[in-house]
Amino acid sequence: MKLYTYWRSTAAYRVRVALHLKGLPFEAESIHLVKGGGEQHGESYRALNPQGLVPALVTDSGVTINQSMAIMEYLESQYPDPPLMPSDPIEQAQTRAMAQMVVADVHPLNNLRVLQYLKKQGWEQDQVDEWYAHWIHQGFSALESMVQDRSTVFMNADYPCISDICLVAQIYNANRFDVPLTDYPTLLDINEKCLKLEAFQKAQPENQFDAVV
Amino acid sequence: MKLYTYWRSTAAYRVRVALHLKGLPFEAESIHLVKGGGEQHGESYRALNPQGLVPALVTDSGVTINQSMAIMEYLESQYPDPPLMPSDPIEQAQTRAMAQMVVADVHPLNNLRVLQYLKKQGWEQDQVDEWYAHWIHQGFSALESMVQDRSTVFMNADYPCISDICLVAQIYNANRFDVPLTDYPTLLDINEKCLKLEAFQKAQPENQFDAVV
Repeated sequence: MKLYTYWRSTAAYRVRVALHLKGLPFEAESIHLVKGGGEQHGESYRALNPQGLVPALVTDSGVTINQSMAIMEYLESQYPDPPLMPSDPIEQAQTRAMAQMVVADVHPLNNLRVLQYLKKQGWEQDQVDEWYAHWIHQGFSALESMVQDRSTVFMNADYPCISDICLVAQIYNANRFDVPLTDYPTLLDINEKCLKLEAFQKAQPENQFDAVV
Repeated sequence: MKLYTYWRSTAAYRVRVALHLKGLPFEAESIHLVKGGGEQHGESYRALNPQGLVPALVTDSGVTINQSMAIMEYLESQYPDPPLMPSDPIEQAQTRAMAQMVVADVHPLNNLRVLQYLKKQGWEQDQVDEWYAHWIHQGFSALESMVQDRSTVFMNADYPCISDICLVAQIYNANRFDVPLTDYPTLLDINEKCLKLEAFQKAQPENQFDAVV
């Protein structure tokens, strides 16, 4: 399998964790999201993924799958062991819901292309930072209240699931923007537990071959 | 099952279609998203769904599931017939990816709470409309290029899937904002086919008990 990735992309980060948790070998190709206006907008990458976003996974049979959630669901269906979701249907639904709360309601608002758009509208960095933090707090406060009384080690199970993966990638991003996260002790605790695992460490942005740190 | 819904919510619209396509009876409770600052922010609804967004589905066993994609996946797993996804793993992945392209990369940017935020920043209606249209065009142009050469009746199969459901709800929303969609003939064609089906008609915003038209 081949993953089109960028070290700082939180969506690519999610898929890297999933691949490493499942112990799946993959080739990584870097798509630089900033250099020269962004390689993701180039013709060759658009031919592969018309949306011009990373990640994209090319399967062993040569088919491209875009969208991190779709890729993780695909990996889960094809390589179920170890699982990234509980088997109970309700627990599974809640796992997906928590993942979507990040994937659909936090990350898209704070994505590079959106922040670029706002700056083009004349927003100062302060205004952009406030916007960024607002959506983190909206999403994280809901997530914190949903997980604070849970008895599981991670968000939805005693092993990391897609919800945890999405959380960890988003916390990395929030830290980049210096958003204070002290109101979310349970989320921070889960993040810490995840980052002790080798799969998460291998997937961390600063440990990627294309990282500039 | 009980669905917390609002007639104009595109995310609730998705779930209504899924329920009707599967022929599942449900009780609908309206959460008015505008009146009095929005009932979704009230204490009683937040207790049910801490995110304060619709839809939320309460299952027969009394558990709440939020996030439209998680709800549709839950319905698919529990009531597989008729399916809302192809059975082939790659086709399934592409169906999920196309759904996510709307759910994660178009809709969250054009959601009520986001437009309200931008207006609070002093944006004029023109500027908000331009923002709205921008993300529709970004998402729809990628989707159009992905489906234009397909041989299936709908986006991913000869029956409507979650991808079609997400598309139809988003086109309804785009029409509200008068976004010209003539560049997306395949998407419009699929939309038209869907709207001929009874399940979509039953789920349409203007046909809801809480609609104000």
